[in-house]
Amino acid sequence: MRAVDWVDGRFRFIDQTLLPQQEVWVDTDDLTVVGEAIRTLRVRGAPAIGVAAAFGLLLALHPRTFSDVPDLRGRLRRASAYLAQTRPTAVNLFYALDRMRGVLDRHAGQSEAQLYAALEREACAIQREDIEACRRIGELGAELIVPGSSLLTHCNAGALATAGDGTALSIVTTAARQGKIVRVYVDETRPLLQGARLTAWELEQADIPVVLITDSTAGTVLREGRVQAVIVGADRVAANGDAANKVGTYPLAVLAQRHGVSFYVAVPTSTLDPDTPSGDGIPIEERDPAEITHFAGVVVAPAGVGVYAPAFDVTPNELITAIVTERGVLRPPYVQTIADVLKAR
Amino acid sequence: MRAVDWVDGRFRFIDQTLLPQQEVWVDTDDLTVVGEAIRTLRVRGAPAIGVAAAFGLLLALHPRTFSDVPDLRGRLRRASAYLAQTRPTAVNLFYALDRMRGVLDRHAGQSEAQLYAALEREACAIQREDIEACRRIGELGAELIVPGSSLLTHCNAGALATAGDGTALSIVTTAARQGKIVRVYVDETRPLLQGARLTAWELEQADIPVVLITDSTAGTVLREGRVQAVIVGADRVAANGDAANKVGTYPLAVLAQRHGVSFYVAVPTSTLDPDTPSGDGIPIEERDPAEITHFAGVVVAPAGVGVYAPAFDVTPNELITAIVTERGVLRPPYVQTIADVLKAR
Repeated sequence: MRAVDWVDGRFRFIDQTLLPQQEVWVDTDDLTVVGEAIRTLRVRGAPAIGVAAAFGLLLALHPRTFSDVPDLRGRLRRASAYLAQTRPTAVNLFYALDRMRGVLDRHAGQSEAQLYAALEREACAIQREDIEACRRIGELGAELIVPGSSLLTHCNAGALATAGDGTALSIVTTAARQGKIVRVYVDETRPLLQGARLTAWELEQADIPVVLITDSTAGTVLREGRVQAVIVGADRVAANGDAANKVGTYPLAVLAQRHGVSFYVAVPTSTLDPDTPSGDGIPIEERDPAEITHFAGVVVAPAGVGVYAPAFDVTPNELITAIVTERGVLRPPYVQTIADVLKAR
Repeated sequence: MRAVDWVDGRFRFIDQTLLPQQEVWVDTDDLTVVGEAIRTLRVRGAPAIGVAAAFGLLLALHPRTFSDVPDLRGRLRRASAYLAQTRPTAVNLFYALDRMRGVLDRHAGQSEAQLYAALEREACAIQREDIEACRRIGELGAELIVPGSSLLTHCNAGALATAGDGTALSIVTTAARQGKIVRVYVDETRPLLQGARLTAWELEQADIPVVLITDSTAGTVLREGRVQAVIVGADRVAANGDAANKVGTYPLAVLAQRHGVSFYVAVPTSTLDPDTPSGDGIPIEERDPAEITHFAGVVVAPAGVGVYAPAFDVTPNELITAIVTERGVLRPPYVQTIADVLKAR
């Protein structure tokens, strides 16, 4: 499965809001369809958002009727600004937009056709690198998994969250192919239930035994010694290793530490953000209160109730056993190991 | 509001599964309606379950057509066994059934009419004592609240969970009347959303500012220093102070400790269980997987997924700052202070 893809000059994605009941694929050459898909979480997961943004920029040049190079550059600049405001936390979005802008900078003086071709090559490179990063994260992370382990994960860091086979779930599926995995506990992940709807669905398709739990039950699962490792993805990792991920990740990390369970964060290096010194600097998106007060159209809270709905939380680096990237398994002190891995990129 | 009550020889309760959309009161003289109400959480909350069970036993004697004392005793024995298997964790259920059995033991040789009257007096005493305990817990607990505090609570330990004004929420409403409370963060409490549906509703009715959050967001709320105390109820407190409460309470206690926030458990002494030495001995109910895989009739997980659905978890005594009872605020070592308070009862 390719949750996001580029097929014959059109962007193709699976609508994740309809899973697992319906598998609806959308095929578009409309930039605003991509932007809305990101904003409404039809496309979600930091790496997938980055790839979608890169292809979205190309769609800004469809149909290829730009009159001249300044027109092309203007269109791209506006499209980039539009996409940049869809969601604030996942750094991959900005990473992809930056790389596309870099192409323009490096190709000054070239024709419109040359520029378009270079931009398309770059977007496809971002996609290809993500696919390869997922594969490599799976290999490197699987080496950390002790045979006979059960794992716990939160939200969805699977194929649906990336251009490839996922980050955290790439480790899970790779380790499962090696016969190391007994079962995987999956937090349902309120409010949008990406764990129940997406991760459980992906793991079932991969024939890996799944046990779905409410987010609050993770405390019991860890206390009872039911899992040997917690593995999650992240939307942005600061220069010091602090990791922003779906709200509920931080409590898991605190509980894992209390119970002596390893806590792994799996991300491509495109999710590492050297420009944000610590988690305090990561912008945390707040979502619509209706995501909590309503469910599938049903009201579940009294009218007028106040709501606090951050979509992400920050896990401080001292709670993270290791950060698994495609360029190696990083260990503390992260400020050093993250700087080193980014220098080598 | 009296969530459970005894009116003219009939048991009356509000159907908590329909709140907050509908306020439906049920009035019954049928024991099985009471038993089913407990099993399906139409009546819930440990103290309320205890009171419902006491009145339920009386209904087993309706219409008062028992032929003789052995018949009455037989009916009560069967009704008690029936009610005892509705839910396993809340000790108040067994506390109430034990007290009613004690009436029979103390009134050997009396007539059927005398026995019935004594049983009705005992059931009403259990109710009256719970109402009074709630009031007193509110007074004693409010003394612990620093003026200007915001609080965090989980599930519902309010009027709906008791015969009176609640346990944890009695403290909240009493402290609010004293002008001490800024706002109350309420965990929605998956899977049945007692926080969103019941606690938010009760606090809104009491004009106390409510902020509803997903259970996972409590980590962020505590990390950001938004609350000065966590207050919850419990379904059973073991002799050493380990407290079973709605699943998700244990993670809250771990997070509260990490952030130096007081963690209070509010219970009537009828929830203290001297016969269970520690939390390991508390039976933890597992609920129907459909409560997690379905929501308001909508499927939210792939078919056939495994589920682990304990309704409660156990918070070890070392994470509990104090246990607020109607007979005083208990502090560690709980094995001593709980024994002392029960001796005085």
